[in-house]
Amino acid sequence: MRVSVLRLGHRKGRDARVTTHVGLASRAFGAGRIILSGDRDPAIMDSLRKVVENWGGDFGISYEGDWQAFLKGFSGTKVHLTMYGLPVYQVVEDLRQGDGEVLLVVGAEKVPGLVYELVDYNVSVTNQPHSEVSAVAVFLDRLFKGRELHREFPEGKRRIVPSAKGKEVIMQPRAQGGLPGND
Amino acid sequence: MRVSVLRLGHRKGRDARVTTHVGLASRAFGAGRIILSGDRDPAIMDSLRKVVENWGGDFGISYEGDWQAFLKGFSGTKVHLTMYGLPVYQVVEDLRQGDGEVLLVVGAEKVPGLVYELVDYNVSVTNQPHSEVSAVAVFLDRLFKGRELHREFPEGKRRIVPSAKGKEVIMQPRAQGGLPGND
Repeated sequence: MRVSVLRLGHRKGRDARVTTHVGLASRAFGAGRIILSGDRDPAIMDSLRKVVENWGGDFGISYEGDWQAFLKGFSGTKVHLTMYGLPVYQVVEDLRQGDGEVLLVVGAEKVPGLVYELVDYNVSVTNQPHSEVSAVAVFLDRLFKGRELHREFPEGKRRIVPSAKGKEVIMQPRAQGGLPGND
Repeated sequence: MRVSVLRLGHRKGRDARVTTHVGLASRAFGAGRIILSGDRDPAIMDSLRKVVENWGGDFGISYEGDWQAFLKGFSGTKVHLTMYGLPVYQVVEDLRQGDGEVLLVVGAEKVPGLVYELVDYNVSVTNQPHSEVSAVAVFLDRLFKGRELHREFPEGKRRIVPSAKGKEVIMQPRAQGGLPGND
């Protein structure tokens, strides 16, 4: 199953860190790409690309000015994460039956009502206010049944060795050799 | 099991939204309270209190200037969430055996090395960079085995009725009567 995340309504400045965290959580929990919409914000795209370069995998990062056209044109299953939606545990099994492409839609502060209509599912990860970052992460963790926590991210420059007390990071020789002084 | 979250190193301005999201995710996913440290930031505490007032439950919000003393003095199990730690799925069963109090420690940008030593567990939710918001949420979802998604938050003014297409919110009569015009 390939999951894309569409981040709606990004506002430069105000949403910078939350949008970056949405991107990082999307990647870490197994989505294949993020599509940013709202204000165009090259700094965020660069910072996400840098994470991919350093930590590996082939997570895609792109910008889409016309999110309505993108959403309408997407041929897979469209899921909007919203505290008003149906509980994730009620719909996740249905979603796993699908043939592959899933688009997760997450808003910033205000999501246009049209989004609720254009998607196949409005899904809540709790009906309490929290964060698009936690909604994406918990949704993906449940969709993939935790398998994404065992995933390898190939071709990164760095890899962590899990440690009880400290920080152990392996610098990968291949990338180190290939990109000298680029750290 | 009662879980408290200690948010280290909050920086006013820069961390405002991420710290707020950490607080909201802590509450939504079943923690009992958050203790903020770093810059004192009454606006964040107010905004979290407002969520509790509107959406219910008894989530506690406090500030602790001396996080080292607090961490040393905490008598339950101390868990630091860090991408460098041991995988959550390796330690979560141990944590469930404990007698009750768990302190989750999450940092902002840089976490002092001392934290790694003062806690009982350094735990990773993936060894990839993502966000303290998603780390808290996925950790709690796994610790509570998803039970927190079925939790009721009593005494709130508002309650969502999960809906396939729209927004359905019930204004609770008790609180409405008690606090007229306070919305």
